[in-house]
Amino acid sequence: MKISVITLFPDMFTGFKTSSIINKAILKGIVEYEVVDMRSFTEDRHNRVDDYPYGGGAGLVLMCQPVIDAIKATRTEESLVIMMTPQGKTLKQSLAYDLSKHEHLVLVCGHYEGFDERIRMYVDMEMSIGDYVLTGGEAAAMVISDAVIRLVDGVITQESHEDDSFSDGLLEYPHYTRPRVYEGHEVPDVLVSGHHENVKRFRLKESLRKTQRVRPDLLENREFSKLEQTLMEEIAQENQGE
Amino acid sequence: MKISVITLFPDMFTGFKTSSIINKAILKGIVEYEVVDMRSFTEDRHNRVDDYPYGGGAGLVLMCQPVIDAIKATRTEESLVIMMTPQGKTLKQSLAYDLSKHEHLVLVCGHYEGFDERIRMYVDMEMSIGDYVLTGGEAAAMVISDAVIRLVDGVITQESHEDDSFSDGLLEYPHYTRPRVYEGHEVPDVLVSGHHENVKRFRLKESLRKTQRVRPDLLENREFSKLEQTLMEEIAQENQGE
Repeated sequence: MKISVITLFPDMFTGFKTSSIINKAILKGIVEYEVVDMRSFTEDRHNRVDDYPYGGGAGLVLMCQPVIDAIKATRTEESLVIMMTPQGKTLKQSLAYDLSKHEHLVLVCGHYEGFDERIRMYVDMEMSIGDYVLTGGEAAAMVISDAVIRLVDGVITQESHEDDSFSDGLLEYPHYTRPRVYEGHEVPDVLVSGHHENVKRFRLKESLRKTQRVRPDLLENREFSKLEQTLMEEIAQENQGE
Repeated sequence: MKISVITLFPDMFTGFKTSSIINKAILKGIVEYEVVDMRSFTEDRHNRVDDYPYGGGAGLVLMCQPVIDAIKATRTEESLVIMMTPQGKTLKQSLAYDLSKHEHLVLVCGHYEGFDERIRMYVDMEMSIGDYVLTGGEAAAMVISDAVIRLVDGVITQESHEDDSFSDGLLEYPHYTRPRVYEGHEVPDVLVSGHHENVKRFRLKESLRKTQRVRPDLLENREFSKLEQTLMEEIAQENQGE
């Protein structure tokens, strides 16, 4: 897979590319990561990429020419060109899975007040990472890259994916590692019991409990398995007892 | 305002800190940005910060000691300590506003399979930037930093905030800049008319139209002004005409 990012701030991606799992995926040859400097495409004699908005108002607007020329130079037949904007489709784990199957993603980062509206006609889709406003699309492009690259085959182990929050519609179960006791707080006995079935049951129950407590919306349309139904009843009884 | 990030990958933040509006806010002295290397706090003789999970399973879990000691060394009386996790409260624009009023934010970035559950007792809140999984909290910490810093007084102009998507519960209106015609696509006449009231009306209408089309959920509980009601009726009629 290849990801190309079109940005006015290529330096923002230096640390991202050379750190952690993204770097490993690049070194393994599984992922190619390209950062394209949008400013190098401007035909303005002063190297400008933005201008004042028609109709007045605060801030500057990215002009068609440099952005569209950068897109044309970067995209191929296989590319999916995604514009980072708060008005786009919101990223979810299922969408990250879909994106991880593409050959080539082109992530176009805006900045300042936004893009000239006509640029939207030159992209395949618009994407948002949540209902908040950023100074530019760069941090959003890193988030999408990170969420997608870890799902590409061979980057991390399959078991790690299966335990992910949201992957099975639940939040992840609690993790514990050494020491057994930290400042008086103990690891639950079941996790050191060596009883595999009980560990599995404990984890599923705690996933359900946590999801119900902090993200009940995730359970609204869930089809519970028989075991999950039993565990939900146990949780309800425990809550009554409190 | 001060933001401290506790991370295993401090280099990831180098480009972020020195780019664009974040850098300007730092240079203006409005924001202090500190990156704390979590690994420097480990007491493990091999410099390890993670270990295998009790109960088995894929991946490694961040240990209590280095993370909690890093938090204790970084937080003060004024700090709000936020753990980056998919299980936290989801960032929204209103939450970004609240955070921008704090003196000191400490953003704790996890990595690998996650944090030892007991670490949660040492933080003030858990935060997520959306329903997807990242390899670590670093990209999420950049997103929160970016969303918050631009709202701190003096970083960008007030007018820019007021036009933001989500700030008034609507998506932002379309922007246009030079040239008037790009590859046959024209700027709407009203924006070059010089008629201030008509420009305002056009922009509000297009905000409503876009929000209704791509994010109707944002309109569900809206109390429409009289002008907004009129514009929504016009949009409905135009849609019927199509």
